[in-house]
Amino acid sequence: MSPQKPKVAGIIAIGNEILSGKVTDLNATHLIQQFRELGVEAKRVAIIPDEIPVIRDQVREFSASFDIVITTGGVGPTHDDVTIEAIAAAFNRPIVPSPELEAVIREYFKDDFKDAWLRMARIPEGTELVWRDGMPFPITKLENVWILPGEPSVMRKKFAAIREDFRQTPIHVRRLFTTWEEGDLAELLEKLEAETGVAIGSYPTYEDRDYKVMITLESRDAKILESATRRLRCSIPRELLVRED
Amino acid sequence: MSPQKPKVAGIIAIGNEILSGKVTDLNATHLIQQFRELGVEAKRVAIIPDEIPVIRDQVREFSASFDIVITTGGVGPTHDDVTIEAIAAAFNRPIVPSPELEAVIREYFKDDFKDAWLRMARIPEGTELVWRDGMPFPITKLENVWILPGEPSVMRKKFAAIREDFRQTPIHVRRLFTTWEEGDLAELLEKLEAETGVAIGSYPTYEDRDYKVMITLESRDAKILESATRRLRCSIPRELLVRED
Repeated sequence: MSPQKPKVAGIIAIGNEILSGKVTDLNATHLIQQFRELGVEAKRVAIIPDEIPVIRDQVREFSASFDIVITTGGVGPTHDDVTIEAIAAAFNRPIVPSPELEAVIREYFKDDFKDAWLRMARIPEGTELVWRDGMPFPITKLENVWILPGEPSVMRKKFAAIREDFRQTPIHVRRLFTTWEEGDLAELLEKLEAETGVAIGSYPTYEDRDYKVMITLESRDAKILESATRRLRCSIPRELLVRED
Repeated sequence: MSPQKPKVAGIIAIGNEILSGKVTDLNATHLIQQFRELGVEAKRVAIIPDEIPVIRDQVREFSASFDIVITTGGVGPTHDDVTIEAIAAAFNRPIVPSPELEAVIREYFKDDFKDAWLRMARIPEGTELVWRDGMPFPITKLENVWILPGEPSVMRKKFAAIREDFRQTPIHVRRLFTTWEEGDLAELLEKLEAETGVAIGSYPTYEDRDYKVMITLESRDAKILESATRRLRCSIPRELLVRED
């Protein structure tokens, strides 16, 4: 059985508030972790302002480059919410009112309904409304782009409702912590990666820790990973290997 | 006196370890905050993998788009450190050994010196070595791109040594917290932004807080900001204004 090429993802966090430091990004960080758990490689993250041309170009590029694209932010009812307009431009679609969304919004707000909320019922032509159990609103998707809100608690709920759609073969990781200097490891790690095909990372720390370098090994093939880890373990002098997990 | 156009910045955090969730990004977050304090608008953040073509293209794009570009990560001695090669490619420069850097590295490591460290003495032709008091190593800069390491404690020290070079007229911020719904605010905020030129953001929360929407007003002109804030304050029913800062 020849395995399918695993899917890769791109994350676009939209919002002046992140770039101006008023709000710390939580969404991209959460999505990175989620994709990891799902075996999906996140290939790129972009944090961009609420500006139509920037969002349009980034969405177009990410949509062409990655299997799955998530945008967060810019979908509310106020003047700084321009994500929908930008995504429509990215795919050359007109923006049309969705009677289905309008009905949901009217039902949700009931007596508190204001016309301003109807801005959220206008979507690019061809946008899918993905309904999931327990969600009062559908999740919107155009082509391979999932359009999520920026408010972290709602974003997480919406992503949780669709995450299983993305699951791939898991990526296994092993980590070795050593007091060896990175310079002493360089040749060894390069050779090991070239010969085993396992992805190897090397991360020094200069803070006061019990190790100097964390080495990571990653593969979707658990056997190959174990064999590469064994080889590395045997190449590091015992007294310099602090621990592994 | 006609004020100069304030400088804008782009941040490129390079490292598979961030995208795979093994390490949470600290560098981009820190730099966003630092730029804010310095009155520099951060226009975009990219988190990208240790892949030469991706780094090359991103550096080229950011260098052409922003006054100041910071890269973090990928400058160590191991096989996964490819930032220097990618930045050289972005500016079509050959990579050359720097006798000045080699001397510093040999002096720093002394008896622990290994040839692998010399990888860090190879830089794109024309790279400036920026020396600052108290720093054992210079900071490297090519065109408008400052090349910083990914290890957070060293990155912070290096940025601290150069940050005053970037200082601009400060950006002032006021924040109002209200229990009004975002839909009720939409028209008011749009009008206020259009008429005052003050940048206005509107951020709902659906977590259990004492407010529903945080409104931010920002300007480099303190007087205009105060006047717009006063106008907004008077437009919000008193019982719906929770607090401001």
